[in-house]
Amino acid sequence: MRATLMYGAGDVRVEDVPDPSILQPTDALVRVTRSCICGSDLWPYKSMPEGSEGRRMGHEFVGVVEDVGADVTQISKGDVVIAPFVFSDGTCAFCAEGLHTSCLNGGFWGTPDVDGGQGEAVRVPQADGTLVPIGVGEDDALMPSLLTLSDVFATGHHAAVSARVQPGHTVAVVGDGAVGLCGVMAAKRLGAEQIIILGRHEVRTNLAREFGATDVVAERGKEAVSRVRELTGGFGAHSVLECVGYEESLGTALRITRPGGAVGRVGMPQADAVPGAQPTFVKNITISGGIAPARAYIEELLPDVLEGRLEPGRVFDRTVDIDGVPDGYRAMEDREAIKVLIEP
Amino acid sequence: MRATLMYGAGDVRVEDVPDPSILQPTDALVRVTRSCICGSDLWPYKSMPEGSEGRRMGHEFVGVVEDVGADVTQISKGDVVIAPFVFSDGTCAFCAEGLHTSCLNGGFWGTPDVDGGQGEAVRVPQADGTLVPIGVGEDDALMPSLLTLSDVFATGHHAAVSARVQPGHTVAVVGDGAVGLCGVMAAKRLGAEQIIILGRHEVRTNLAREFGATDVVAERGKEAVSRVRELTGGFGAHSVLECVGYEESLGTALRITRPGGAVGRVGMPQADAVPGAQPTFVKNITISGGIAPARAYIEELLPDVLEGRLEPGRVFDRTVDIDGVPDGYRAMEDREAIKVLIEP
Repeated sequence: MRATLMYGAGDVRVEDVPDPSILQPTDALVRVTRSCICGSDLWPYKSMPEGSEGRRMGHEFVGVVEDVGADVTQISKGDVVIAPFVFSDGTCAFCAEGLHTSCLNGGFWGTPDVDGGQGEAVRVPQADGTLVPIGVGEDDALMPSLLTLSDVFATGHHAAVSARVQPGHTVAVVGDGAVGLCGVMAAKRLGAEQIIILGRHEVRTNLAREFGATDVVAERGKEAVSRVRELTGGFGAHSVLECVGYEESLGTALRITRPGGAVGRVGMPQADAVPGAQPTFVKNITISGGIAPARAYIEELLPDVLEGRLEPGRVFDRTVDIDGVPDGYRAMEDREAIKVLIEP
Repeated sequence: MRATLMYGAGDVRVEDVPDPSILQPTDALVRVTRSCICGSDLWPYKSMPEGSEGRRMGHEFVGVVEDVGADVTQISKGDVVIAPFVFSDGTCAFCAEGLHTSCLNGGFWGTPDVDGGQGEAVRVPQADGTLVPIGVGEDDALMPSLLTLSDVFATGHHAAVSARVQPGHTVAVVGDGAVGLCGVMAAKRLGAEQIIILGRHEVRTNLAREFGATDVVAERGKEAVSRVRELTGGFGAHSVLECVGYEESLGTALRITRPGGAVGRVGMPQADAVPGAQPTFVKNITISGGIAPARAYIEELLPDVLEGRLEPGRVFDRTVDIDGVPDGYRAMEDREAIKVLIEP
């Protein structure tokens, strides 16, 4: 089959790789019908050292179950399924707490001996715990929105939950990428009254407004902090969603948080430390979030997507086939595209 | 009257200062019957640059109301009262949310034109919002425990609440000072099942066991992390109370937190940044806490103290009169005393 591998910064190739097969009785084999490129894929695209071994890429996909191992009981051949962005057994202490990203028997896609989602098929370990059948046809028009439940919309929701968004609250979202846009939608869904997005790309901030943003702050750094304070009666936002990951953006997020408020961080941190240990202490600001346990949220978010109330799939503004994946990375890195859908 | 002033590191003096008087109609005048020295007073005791102007010290006191301003309606002359460690109006948006430390009309004791608690009397601004009448005699035997509600026990409780202690949870407390000991008691009160204290001073860790600690870890750094993991099935503690403030102790706190768990930090941070931005992200660890809004907790904690179920006053292991305050600082700095009570 064809699959995507990264060999170093800027070096993404689509190659022939061995077809996956059932290795464990808890595995399923999924033919990928839609996958996509994640903002977090751009971190290695910027910085991965050139190496002789390619790394399999992709951790967001939907598809059709082609085969299941002997111990799989919840998933059947022919099911159309969402795969969240880690696999997990669904039964360990952490899965029971809704923290599937810390599953004792789970792991990440694209690691040694585990396929990546940006390919034609995937061997899915822990299929019963991982996959969610969605009961629609594989080419349903809702598919782009359903695909976002595998990571990007679930991650925006995790940011909102971690930042303790509540009805009537003021929310700020740092970052106008696909996660930030989904964060706006998630905050709106949770009842936020004022939603301020910090971003300067008009196509994206316009979409943010359609998703529920009430205010756009194009400034950065100190000016952004002043502007958000002006918009929030001088206090800052109750809940701030950090959807970028740079030290500067996290610092901005912490400075625009109201005393007693919370930051939900879902941008992969690029620095070793969280800035502002003292001002956040004086203001009793909570710093929460992390890698989103998408699996924990799918059942909750699914009806809003299936019934058409939410269209997070609108973050996809370009579609490529499998051979177009390298150019999809380039387009996202160059900010030509918000998020690229792959139809392998 | 006599009051305590700090002129620089290691330089604490008790001097004659002008008697306080009512300056604003919202003021009360309180004769201090008990106050104490806080672990946080030791930070300037270690590091304050020598200056010509002394700084008034002390932010924990109980006393008797001697006079009230014309607008004070909730507090009367003769009331025995607890003063929490900031003053606050009790009516602003932040007080309404229980975050009295961010009161829009509040402030800290021992700041310019505001008395400190380590003296014979204090002018209390925002008396109605600040003071809590406790309905016992000024020399009641419970007074040491009641005094802890002004800060140290309320702070231990804030650490426990911020770390989301729940019935049946595993809790670790970093630090065996008076706040850590009160954190143990607060965790026990909230139903924690296993309470691990990290400390190496046997007098203190013995008291911690009496307060509810189930395990003592005397190791530090990596060894402490290994030991706590051993004691918690390899996972770490659900809730970790950081009661020291050094970067190293905060780092230890974060490393012994179970994935999905929370650190409640109440040790005044001595470094600019919070370490471990990436591992805490991967593990979805929440970092919460800050300066404790003691005023928000007094009503909740008071019955347990008044009815003798909790004796946080046992953290006081030395009593001095007003002239003994400088030696009290020395005794706490030298770790001869856990916490020093002042009877002016």
